[in-house]
Amino acid sequence: MEPRSIEIFDTTLRDGAQGEGISFSLEDKLNIAQKLCKLGIAFVEAGNPGSNPKDMEFFRRAGELVLGETQLVAFGSTRKKGGSAREDEGCAALLSAGTRWVAVFGKSWDLHVRDVLRTTLEENLAMIRDTVSFLKEQGRMVIFDAEHFFDGYRSHPDYARQAVLAAREAGADRVVLCDTNGGTFPDQVGDITGEMVGLLGIPVGIHAHNDSGCAVAAAMAAVEAGASQVQGTYIGFGERCGNTNLSTIIPNLQLKKGYRCIPDEKMVRIGKTARFIAEVTNLALPANMPYVGRSAFAHKGGMHVDGVTKNAATFEHITPEAVGNRRSILLSEFAGRSAIASKVAELDSSITRDSQVTAELIEKLKGREYQGYAYESAAASFELFARKELGKYRPAFDLEYFKILGEQPAVKVDRSCSAIIKVRVGESIEMTSAEGDGPVHALDIALRKALEVFYPSLSEVRLIDYKVRVMESHMATAATVRVIIESTDGLSTWTTVGCSADIIDASWQALRDSMEYKLMRDGAV
Amino acid sequence: MEPRSIEIFDTTLRDGAQGEGISFSLEDKLNIAQKLCKLGIAFVEAGNPGSNPKDMEFFRRAGELVLGETQLVAFGSTRKKGGSAREDEGCAALLSAGTRWVAVFGKSWDLHVRDVLRTTLEENLAMIRDTVSFLKEQGRMVIFDAEHFFDGYRSHPDYARQAVLAAREAGADRVVLCDTNGGTFPDQVGDITGEMVGLLGIPVGIHAHNDSGCAVAAAMAAVEAGASQVQGTYIGFGERCGNTNLSTIIPNLQLKKGYRCIPDEKMVRIGKTARFIAEVTNLALPANMPYVGRSAFAHKGGMHVDGVTKNAATFEHITPEAVGNRRSILLSEFAGRSAIASKVAELDSSITRDSQVTAELIEKLKGREYQGYAYESAAASFELFARKELGKYRPAFDLEYFKILGEQPAVKVDRSCSAIIKVRVGESIEMTSAEGDGPVHALDIALRKALEVFYPSLSEVRLIDYKVRVMESHMATAATVRVIIESTDGLSTWTTVGCSADIIDASWQALRDSMEYKLMRDGAV
Repeated sequence: MEPRSIEIFDTTLRDGAQGEGISFSLEDKLNIAQKLCKLGIAFVEAGNPGSNPKDMEFFRRAGELVLGETQLVAFGSTRKKGGSAREDEGCAALLSAGTRWVAVFGKSWDLHVRDVLRTTLEENLAMIRDTVSFLKEQGRMVIFDAEHFFDGYRSHPDYARQAVLAAREAGADRVVLCDTNGGTFPDQVGDITGEMVGLLGIPVGIHAHNDSGCAVAAAMAAVEAGASQVQGTYIGFGERCGNTNLSTIIPNLQLKKGYRCIPDEKMVRIGKTARFIAEVTNLALPANMPYVGRSAFAHKGGMHVDGVTKNAATFEHITPEAVGNRRSILLSEFAGRSAIASKVAELDSSITRDSQVTAELIEKLKGREYQGYAYESAAASFELFARKELGKYRPAFDLEYFKILGEQPAVKVDRSCSAIIKVRVGESIEMTSAEGDGPVHALDIALRKALEVFYPSLSEVRLIDYKVRVMESHMATAATVRVIIESTDGLSTWTTVGCSADIIDASWQALRDSMEYKLMRDGAV
Repeated sequence: MEPRSIEIFDTTLRDGAQGEGISFSLEDKLNIAQKLCKLGIAFVEAGNPGSNPKDMEFFRRAGELVLGETQLVAFGSTRKKGGSAREDEGCAALLSAGTRWVAVFGKSWDLHVRDVLRTTLEENLAMIRDTVSFLKEQGRMVIFDAEHFFDGYRSHPDYARQAVLAAREAGADRVVLCDTNGGTFPDQVGDITGEMVGLLGIPVGIHAHNDSGCAVAAAMAAVEAGASQVQGTYIGFGERCGNTNLSTIIPNLQLKKGYRCIPDEKMVRIGKTARFIAEVTNLALPANMPYVGRSAFAHKGGMHVDGVTKNAATFEHITPEAVGNRRSILLSEFAGRSAIASKVAELDSSITRDSQVTAELIEKLKGREYQGYAYESAAASFELFARKELGKYRPAFDLEYFKILGEQPAVKVDRSCSAIIKVRVGESIEMTSAEGDGPVHALDIALRKALEVFYPSLSEVRLIDYKVRVMESHMATAATVRVIIESTDGLSTWTTVGCSADIIDASWQALRDSMEYKLMRDGAV
């Protein structure tokens, strides 16, 4: 038998953006949407074009995305009370997004109709009907989100039913039952969803929040009761306590319950997508997040390590590789011997797990990580570090000095800093200067200018990412900062790290490693 | 009718300590145990005296604790295969802890008996029987933890039943069903627990893990099926993805389902206890943790803010005060009119939700947030911004200029930057310079030095946090950075934001706002 298909509807960019501390740039939104398309997510809700200029701009640029099977969805609300959908600004904005699918939310809880909308129960039903039928006339596929449906059902079940029936009768293609306040438990979500699936006769979705810590379980209960669409945010963040975590529920449903959410061959991208979205959002992905967290398959208790070594099924409910994660045995807080040995063996095949030099490298690495270096995300700097320790490193240049001058008011608005740099390659000296938008920008330009004289291939290199993390940030402006830089020469990319109390010095270390790594790989040194 | 009582069993100090990155000192353990006693938790499992000298020392010092109604529990395992409980080192260690209650875990999954213990199914039953009856003879109250019970039940239901029956027949006072791998869904946990409650006729407990994101829901299902003990860790951390989060399930059961877990008057301590345990464990309490997180009652979406302002029940499933938390209204591009108006009304009570100036402020705020400012976490900068717009701002000083010089090699290792600053207050000019560890550090010191001449109260101010976020970081070193600074004068703290392509300029904006805010609050301007 074919597995039953469940539509996954991701609202990271809309409901997720309502989480505290979440703020996406337009580029962030495009990048995240693209990753979700690659994962084969059915629907990506990308924003509310009526409330936010950035969201409108997103839909304008959506043509740049490779969508595959994914449908982009614009979000809005039912028309204003006492008006008409045809003349409603919100409905017009929704249409102007130009998506085939739109989601509109409306009220199904009498309390909200009275206390928030401040209108009559009958007018609210008319708002639902008018809005849905207008959008259908305009050729859209319409998802009706019944906001606070479960609270509404508890307060006035018959009115809640009328609200979703109004949407269906007006032609809605999907009705989504929302537990907007996150207070409904899974058993009740299952019972009520089952009744609505029977009543409505069109596909029903579930949108749950995590205020009772049960958002995943509630959505599972709805699916078991017949719901065929699950809404959530990819790594669970959203208003208050967040939404159903899709990176948890997709493996639950697909690997453990036999439903089909995304193409089977995409399952191994589950972990990578979570890490990507966390990175773009500038959140640390919680280590203990099911399936995708760094600790999800980490074993520390002695008996657990012993058990999992004998038979992985003894302490793992699925294999980590199935979701693109991996098992880790926590020997210490830092990298284990086998991992280091396998990296180092690429530089010198005579070195094994048990070599003296491996033990020494691990000790030095622990010291560096304790200072703040993070080599797991900076493989190029790790290779340079290991080469130095193994005597397999030759410097491509020496720094004589650099000086950076930053000033306000700036000479020109985008030229607030200037850098002077003097480098030596063999017996030759090169000295140059550059202006930039901030100290690191000026330094980066000056360094390239100086080195290109000796190494023309550096003109191909450009930085594609620059991250700053403040460590022990309670020490305020004298705290250590870690800078991670990602560079490319068009063919490959590499990542380097620097660490210092001075952000300019930390950036310098990462910049220098980036140039040296490129030259080493090219055989230029 | 009296509410049904549920025993809460906290294993933060035992199973929680197996979480990645968790490491407690003896003092940490005593402090956490004391806080759990104060909350009225029934059982606090404090460690395994047989496996860990630190845990043994804990029990030696447990007399220092004010226990109240709480029972401390020592944890261990069934005797070794082929031995006798009376001569077993682990059993002896368990007794030497001197607690009235002990918890022993034993195998109930045939796979584990064969692959991990490497003994016969019959010998494992004998191990359970011997251990429990020996501990009973020694006068202990015995909790039997049936490890992997649900996996065992799926694999070989009859053997799983024999294992827990063996414990009961040997005199166990409680049998706890453990979903050790965290892979069982709530519906199945409920069904199997219900069967065991009927079969055993003694109090049954549930110990769930969060590998499927359902640990809270699974424990709720077990309680609804008749379980009367819930095991978990207070803020959910533990091996891999963690355990049932007690700070979530206690309010779920007590406030929303009518069970009695802790004394009613202790409920307001739920939030404070979570913050305390996170602090001692050196973890950031996840902002979106149900009930206790900073964002659990934070409202950001414009419609949510509008709703909650009209009637809190519209977007909150319980009142935050019931669990010692509080509501917060976040300012951001999503915040509508109500949130802005309520903040602005504090500055000028004549301004309402519908004032023209509110609409203008919202438009300007959207523009600033589009540039990268994030006012939701920088309330002090928001107030300054609003005052400027309302004509209620007077500058405390003017910047003539600053110049910052960064250089490598540094003059001294922790003095890589120097700053010159010239400020004007009224007709007076002050010019000064300072050295620092990085450009922002130097600028911070120089600015304070210059301003303290005019405003001595600034000497009380220090920065306690400094965060840098690179926006649209694919633009590499010319990308926009957002700097957030938290400052204190010892009495209160405030947060400010700056945004620029130049990190020095962004830091300057946040620093300047911090000083101005302090002076405005003191009435110095």
